[in-house]
Amino acid sequence: MDLRTYSPTSRTTLHRIPGRGSYDRAVVHAILDEALVCHIGFIHEASPIVIPTTFVRIDEQIFVHGAVASRMLKALAGGARACVTVTLVDGLVLARTAFHHSMNYRSVVILGVASLEEDAATKRDVLMRLIEKLSPERSRALRDPNAKELAATSLLAVSLDEVSAKTRSGMPKDEDEPEDKVAPVWAGIVPLSLSARAAQPENGDAERYPLPHVPAVFRASS
Amino acid sequence: MDLRTYSPTSRTTLHRIPGRGSYDRAVVHAILDEALVCHIGFIHEASPIVIPTTFVRIDEQIFVHGAVASRMLKALAGGARACVTVTLVDGLVLARTAFHHSMNYRSVVILGVASLEEDAATKRDVLMRLIEKLSPERSRALRDPNAKELAATSLLAVSLDEVSAKTRSGMPKDEDEPEDKVAPVWAGIVPLSLSARAAQPENGDAERYPLPHVPAVFRASS
Repeated sequence: MDLRTYSPTSRTTLHRIPGRGSYDRAVVHAILDEALVCHIGFIHEASPIVIPTTFVRIDEQIFVHGAVASRMLKALAGGARACVTVTLVDGLVLARTAFHHSMNYRSVVILGVASLEEDAATKRDVLMRLIEKLSPERSRALRDPNAKELAATSLLAVSLDEVSAKTRSGMPKDEDEPEDKVAPVWAGIVPLSLSARAAQPENGDAERYPLPHVPAVFRASS
Repeated sequence: MDLRTYSPTSRTTLHRIPGRGSYDRAVVHAILDEALVCHIGFIHEASPIVIPTTFVRIDEQIFVHGAVASRMLKALAGGARACVTVTLVDGLVLARTAFHHSMNYRSVVILGVASLEEDAATKRDVLMRLIEKLSPERSRALRDPNAKELAATSLLAVSLDEVSAKTRSGMPKDEDEPEDKVAPVWAGIVPLSLSARAAQPENGDAERYPLPHVPAVFRASS
């Protein structure tokens, strides 16, 4: 068993363009750590439901949280099957033919069952790790969540067991017809990335406090 | 019946923070037209599966496409229930308390059943509209898809009937405890948006051709 990779299962084996797939833990972790939002799928009254929410990875689990009363949390806390998908959009792929237009992206699909994390100290630590993900070094400036706040928040964990990544990068590939390679049209990529603009304070006395940190990946791409 | 709005159903009525919800067609359309990627949920062997893919809205339908052989297309072409969720990340909401940290976002959830679009002329038109969404005015520079390409591409439509939008914008709200409003910490928002960087040509003779257009929303935010 290679601990650097996830083991493919029948459900995570990629059949379409397998060269775009990866089970490498480092690849999966990097995508999960950069993305702010995941899309959680669950089944509610025989229908698939997909909800966006923030999340944080800690070791080989991801955590999502929400109000105790939310439909998603109620559905998932009962041990229902879940699919958590994370997608980073990296660019437009503009080929010489309509057929080969594409996107550059990095995505992860996690299949599993959510478990409710009820220990108050663990909940507190995970929520602070989520805040660190959004704004590094911020959690130390905040008061601890109080008992009422922790009780109002449900925290769910999904283990990284059945996991695959899929990515596309690089230039378009117009290879089907010889004349396509020389068609008279601009071809290439337009890189896209989530970028931060200047922070906007709410405080009237914001100049008294240090500006918040923003994850390096957002600064670098602006 | 108000034609400017979608009718809420039991499945699309928002219970949590209903003030963030909208059934306004113009709000829904604007989110769908800005987003490049949707996350489609469907049920496969009793598990929810969520897959990211590009899409385009035309009037009151959205269209996704993929290889005829893909698991997603095979599952959905049979008339299975689907949930299509679209999320735009607009910013970090950094409150004075951990509990009130949030994200600014705009999202749409569409519940429905996909139908396979098999008419070659319709498929061609929709695929060209998708390319126009990625890069306005580009489709006229490309040759038409040929019969082999159209046959290899499945196109699915989902009607905008059971639809809701949910958005958060603006500043954090630390209102639970009086002392939180004056806690000595920077509070506010960090705007985030998907931005384009300089297009990178593949052609050796790229200077002969006009640069591709990029949707205005990506240029404006860079």
